[in-house]
Amino acid sequence: MTRVETAIAFARAHAKDALKGLEELLRIPSVSTLPEHKADMDKAAEWLAARLRSLGMTQVEILSTKGHAAVCGERITAKDKPTVLVYGHYDVQPADPLDEWRTPPFEPTVVGDNLIARGASDMKGQIMAQLAAVEALLETGGLPVNLKYVLEGEEEIGSPNMGGLLKAHQDRFTCDAALNCDAGIHAPDLPGIVYGLRGLAYFEIEVRGPATDLHSGLFGGIVHNPAQVLCELIAAMHDSDGRITLPGFYDSVESLTDEERAVIAQCPTSEADWRRMSGVPALWDGEKGYTAAERIGARPTLEVNGFLSGFTGQGSKTVLPARAVAKVSMRLVPNQEADAVAGQLREYVKRHAPDTVTCEVREVIHGPTAIMNRDTPYMRAAAKALTDTFGVEPVFKREGGSVPIVALLQQELGVDPVMLGFALPDDGVHGPNEKQHLPTFYKGIETYIRFLCEAGGIAGARGKR
Amino acid sequence: MTRVETAIAFARAHAKDALKGLEELLRIPSVSTLPEHKADMDKAAEWLAARLRSLGMTQVEILSTKGHAAVCGERITAKDKPTVLVYGHYDVQPADPLDEWRTPPFEPTVVGDNLIARGASDMKGQIMAQLAAVEALLETGGLPVNLKYVLEGEEEIGSPNMGGLLKAHQDRFTCDAALNCDAGIHAPDLPGIVYGLRGLAYFEIEVRGPATDLHSGLFGGIVHNPAQVLCELIAAMHDSDGRITLPGFYDSVESLTDEERAVIAQCPTSEADWRRMSGVPALWDGEKGYTAAERIGARPTLEVNGFLSGFTGQGSKTVLPARAVAKVSMRLVPNQEADAVAGQLREYVKRHAPDTVTCEVREVIHGPTAIMNRDTPYMRAAAKALTDTFGVEPVFKREGGSVPIVALLQQELGVDPVMLGFALPDDGVHGPNEKQHLPTFYKGIETYIRFLCEAGGIAGARGKR
Repeated sequence: MTRVETAIAFARAHAKDALKGLEELLRIPSVSTLPEHKADMDKAAEWLAARLRSLGMTQVEILSTKGHAAVCGERITAKDKPTVLVYGHYDVQPADPLDEWRTPPFEPTVVGDNLIARGASDMKGQIMAQLAAVEALLETGGLPVNLKYVLEGEEEIGSPNMGGLLKAHQDRFTCDAALNCDAGIHAPDLPGIVYGLRGLAYFEIEVRGPATDLHSGLFGGIVHNPAQVLCELIAAMHDSDGRITLPGFYDSVESLTDEERAVIAQCPTSEADWRRMSGVPALWDGEKGYTAAERIGARPTLEVNGFLSGFTGQGSKTVLPARAVAKVSMRLVPNQEADAVAGQLREYVKRHAPDTVTCEVREVIHGPTAIMNRDTPYMRAAAKALTDTFGVEPVFKREGGSVPIVALLQQELGVDPVMLGFALPDDGVHGPNEKQHLPTFYKGIETYIRFLCEAGGIAGARGKR
Repeated sequence: MTRVETAIAFARAHAKDALKGLEELLRIPSVSTLPEHKADMDKAAEWLAARLRSLGMTQVEILSTKGHAAVCGERITAKDKPTVLVYGHYDVQPADPLDEWRTPPFEPTVVGDNLIARGASDMKGQIMAQLAAVEALLETGGLPVNLKYVLEGEEEIGSPNMGGLLKAHQDRFTCDAALNCDAGIHAPDLPGIVYGLRGLAYFEIEVRGPATDLHSGLFGGIVHNPAQVLCELIAAMHDSDGRITLPGFYDSVESLTDEERAVIAQCPTSEADWRRMSGVPALWDGEKGYTAAERIGARPTLEVNGFLSGFTGQGSKTVLPARAVAKVSMRLVPNQEADAVAGQLREYVKRHAPDTVTCEVREVIHGPTAIMNRDTPYMRAAAKALTDTFGVEPVFKREGGSVPIVALLQQELGVDPVMLGFALPDDGVHGPNEKQHLPTFYKGIETYIRFLCEAGGIAGARGKR
């Protein structure tokens, strides 16, 4: 058997152990945005540090930040071989709406081919698949590359402290290549590599009218309803062509080249697939002049993520609410800057808000956009690993989500991270009943084994430690 | 001393007892719309039944309905005198937003001239003022009229069972006149009589898009955001002239006559008063072509009472919400019918909702409009009682709120109820820190004494028992 084959044979023989480890990690409700889960965050970090130590890692440390800590460790044993920095995040999104989960979000449950739990796909599954690959290699002859780890606890809240962490510990993270496991493929039988990510600018808009909730009969007609004002502000943020109306919003947006439109057009997901995955009666036309695949990955969008005003309990309460708050976020593309978008939103609100209310725009989180070179040795190594595992070549894609670490790794460490992960489009990440497709999880382990072996053979690596 | 003077002297000597009784009733959190307060509703009904018995009422009974019970009783001792049916409601609005109360909503607290508690003004204060007037008359020679009581527990949820109750027990409620204590005056030094009430049509609109909350990056641009759709639907419900755009909404609206506009123009509340009371930076122009007093009382309005969608906790969650729900209600004027408005809203949603979502319009509660004859003996008795107590003549007004019982009393018992109550415009009814202005509460007791004495002298009363 080849080196790869023996490691894969080990991984297959120990698949149940990998699943068991993943279930253990999923039972820790490491929700980074909710203060009441602080202890769970610490617990998850300690669990991962222990796991790194059990794999013979050294320099294992829980690096504290102003927010949640990052778990680090390394195994530098392969002389003259490249050093690969593995990135992942152990935090997850809140589980609400809780009543839509068919099984408890933090009690991982296998249903058919799927493991259901918050974080199963985003992204505890990928962390544990990568570590299973490392274990298989260690148990069958050793690592073909040197490895370093940075597993953060703040990806789901926009990685506010990762830039500072990478800067403060630059020596620790010096590497030849970075492997970002927070990624996905197109379908269980169709691999893909994400080479572009949208940025994020996330805001809260608050409209305040009367000093307190008023009786809607006694004041309706002379007091401007803050919920109505906020509805009007949000409604006018898109024009009839589906374009975003913030002043100057498209000014810096890089046009898509014909070559890039051709790459994006290879996206194998059909509109019918997206409709089925989302469960909508019909897809939205969105911005005119762009295909669905372009709109979802390569064009900027604006979404209402939440809206709260007045009485929302059962039955009726005839109030004219004192205030209305919406969470509104934009996905950005090159060369949009979140700070500039914040200015555009403030200007929009200033121009359109009536003097009958006061408005406040609060910046919640920002994340940069990133585009990676599709033609590097490590990108080719990832493509070969996927082709060998799935029997079909991967399709390159630009993804609609935002992973701030990608731009940070580019900026701080000078590496183009390889996005190699195994989330599926219908995994329900961020929503209820999030799942990990287990056959894909196992293929993920094999792909990571192949990728590390391919990376070990890359000539010209500088052997950065 | 005259009959009135002796009763008033008694009331003044026992003012503290009246306040104590009111505080007791306010401590019972009788919130009709919240199922968890069912036991409190029963407790409040029993408390009032005991109070009626202690005043020598007979036929005291808690009449159950499909919802909350109504408390009834009577004292038929004044031979050849008219019988006055007293209406009130013992239920209150929910206390939320709780964190905006400076004192606990169900622990009545005297601050300066005011008693702070949910229900202090709407309307446990008026019930207890009226009963204090009855006690003063009983203790100083007896009642000048016959009295019947109906104190319901469902006014704040639209009196859904009062029509049936009045029909089922018509003999019990037969009367010559009705006194509706659920009313207010303009200012502590300026009495008023409400002779018109707006109707109410209250709805929930739900917009459903994807089957579950989606990742806003992975689906933003191709899935129509239900919160955005609902914002667009609501935003377009008013045109640039502040008019409501539901198809046919104004078709049946009765025009204001010049005479009525002149009566409404006597409203002493200035725009500056309203701005101060509501705490808004500027009043809303609302429907073009109408004064503030007309818009607030005599023209129909549409309000968003609540809006909920997506993630509304602290921080960020990048979801594209599966659904958005708004509570939207209209205040109606003669001759609008809530059923017709429901049809107009359904038609509006049908015309404007895109096929990317599904929409549902749910009817929550409806209440009819009412206009009362300003020139009846009982209306004149009320005006005289107010003039004698306040030293200034009352101003007639049409009020923006909705009190379904008014139209029900007209329909079922054939009487035009006299609206005689003492809520003030800045009492904060339905909002946090609701208050009862105590000097006005005591003047209310005196006014009720005078009204009952005036009513006892009305000739031609049919003596309906």
